[in-house]
Amino acid sequence: MTRIHVPIALRWGEQDPYGHINNVHIMRILEEARVRVFWKPDPRDTEALRAGPGPLAILDATSGGATQHLVASHHVQYMVPIPYLRGEIDVQLWIGKLSGAGMEVCYEIHDPVGSKTDTTYVRATTTTALYDTEAGRVRRMTADEEAAWRPYTDEPLVFRR
Amino acid sequence: MTRIHVPIALRWGEQDPYGHINNVHIMRILEEARVRVFWKPDPRDTEALRAGPGPLAILDATSGGATQHLVASHHVQYMVPIPYLRGEIDVQLWIGKLSGAGMEVCYEIHDPVGSKTDTTYVRATTTTALYDTEAGRVRRMTADEEAAWRPYTDEPLVFRR
Amino acid sequence: MTRIHVPIALRWGEQDPYGHINNVHIMRILEEARVRVFWKPDPRDTEALRAGPGPLAILDATSGGATQHLVASHHVQYMVPIPYLRGEIDVQLWIGKLSGAGMEVCYEIHDPVGSKTDTTYVRATTTTALYDTEAGRVRRMTADEEAAWRPYTDEPLVFRR
Amino acid sequence: MTRIHVPIALRWGEQDPYGHINNVHIMRILEEARVRVFWKPDPRDTEALRAGPGPLAILDATSGGATQHLVASHHVQYMVPIPYLRGEIDVQLWIGKLSGAGMEVCYEIHDPVGSKTDTTYVRATTTTALYDTEAGRVRRMTADEEAAWRPYTDEPLVFRR
Repeated sequence: MTRIHVPIALRWGEQDPYGHINNVHIMRILEEARVRVFWKPDPRDTEALRAGPGPLAILDATSGGATQHLVASHHVQYMVPIPYLRGEIDVQLWIGKLSGAGMEVCYEIHDPVGSKTDTTYVRATTTTALYDTEAGRVRRMTADEEAAWRPYTDEPLVFRR
Repeated sequence: MTRIHVPIALRWGEQDPYGHINNVHIMRILEEARVRVFWKPDPRDTEALRAGPGPLAILDATSGGATQHLVASHHVQYMVPIPYLRGEIDVQLWIGKLSGAGMEVCYEIHDPVGSKTDTTYVRATTTTALYDTEAGRVRRMTADEEAAWRPYTDEPLVFRR
Repeated sequence: MTRIHVPIALRWGEQDPYGHINNVHIMRILEEARVRVFWKPDPRDTEALRAGPGPLAILDATSGGATQHLVASHHVQYMVPIPYLRGEIDVQLWIGKLSGAGMEVCYEIHDPVGSKTDTTYVRATTTTALYDTEAGRVRRMTADEEAAWRPYTDEPLVFRR
Repeated sequence: MTRIHVPIALRWGEQDPYGHINNVHIMRILEEARVRVFWKPDPRDTEALRAGPGPLAILDATSGGATQHLVASHHVQYMVPIPYLRGEIDVQLWIGKLSGAGMEVCYEIHDPVGSKTDTTYVRATTTTALYDTEAGRVRRMTADEEAAWRPYTDEPLVFRR
């Protein structure tokens, strides 16, 4: 199976008055997983650069980079409310589709790895586009990008009506 | 046409390093429009209670209310990046479908009313569920709710692939 | 009296599980007031540019501008919890001190203008610095800046222990 | 030395257009450190309850708890802008003062533990109050609370003008 597991810590202040993590902040969590998987570390982050990024983290998309990794659309299904847990939730991420100028990222949010339960809290997809910062327009995926990302493609999520 | 116009002010700090309103914060803006249209004012908000809520604002869904107006899913399409504008953007909102226990809210985000341009920045739908706080489960829509909301139903947004 | 009144709309999602506007989001509200008072509109905001900025809004400090208006410190006192109100709260802002390279901004957050009550929810000060983006260092205030801002100086807030 | 080290992960989306972690989000990070140190895990967080909380984590202050741990004031000094780092920053926290009904929490934010550099990015203090949810008013610190917290008191931070 080709899913990448990104552990993300929740914050108490991301809850709303209903007492669970607000649906908007869940989008922030998915964004962070996407950034950590697909983007090179920030040029100022010497520790992460020394450690070496993951095999998919090849986009120069942070502050002032050559590419912007834009969000074209989201589709998110909230299945179970997420309480404020101290362990890092398990964001499972894979690529549902590579297209000429972007991709469809698929995610599921699960209980922290090692929990006694395994709830699937959220299922979501994000369609992204690669934007050439200097040229000022969407660009095509390079052969290197496709080679790095292809192994992590799998069946896309399907949302039932 | 049955669209409701909800003016919402942007904030500079809702931009990300790409220099436009971050896609996550746009979900916050849609949430705020939904709350203002469908929910009664907070019991502590004596001014808004005196002013009287709009005709759709009948849900007792704020802190400690009888109902929680839960988000089941979002589908959002970002068409044009939103810059930091000082005028209140025009969130146009209508009901795409009333179902037994919730609704599909449709939105478009446009330039502030009165602008010389009229950009459609975002198109989105949210599927919601009515949750009975005391009973601890989803409840059916009441006849009063349906009567209040029915006049604001219109063709739902369709997302092209 | 030299206070500037900046009306700011609250958002339901800025509340935390305690059921009032979270103290962190109150800092976002003060930031927004500061931006609207001291900064020129964003170059993409043609409507605000046409309308003309206020007399203090002379800093070119938005995306890619010549100056960054940095926060050096905050001192905030939360006196009364802020409920989710639909009216725009009244952020009263003035300059407590102009220094060579920045200023001390003072604020009080009050009930929406026209409310029957007038609660002072928050008192705060922010010390800012003017940073020359191109030179890459803090710069001195210009004579024009001092002339624009001097009339809005008043007694700084004092925080009792 | 009595400092507690709380590792907190940053998020790309917490940056603003200036390209560093926005000062407002830094307050969110300090809040999260405070919650993890002083509060019991959420009753729904069975994994954290099984693991056992730290020795200071004795407040029942999450959703619907007996106590609210309110913020009375913050004093924050931003010394160096925080870039988006992938490693967890080191929030160092200690108690500057215990008073009858609350405490002064002191913090410094440092580079991730194990980094080659050790920058002090932020220094801050928060004055808190213990609020009895049922009684609806501030309450006095109990003897058990004082006994748990006293060992972590140290010299409070002093802010130079």
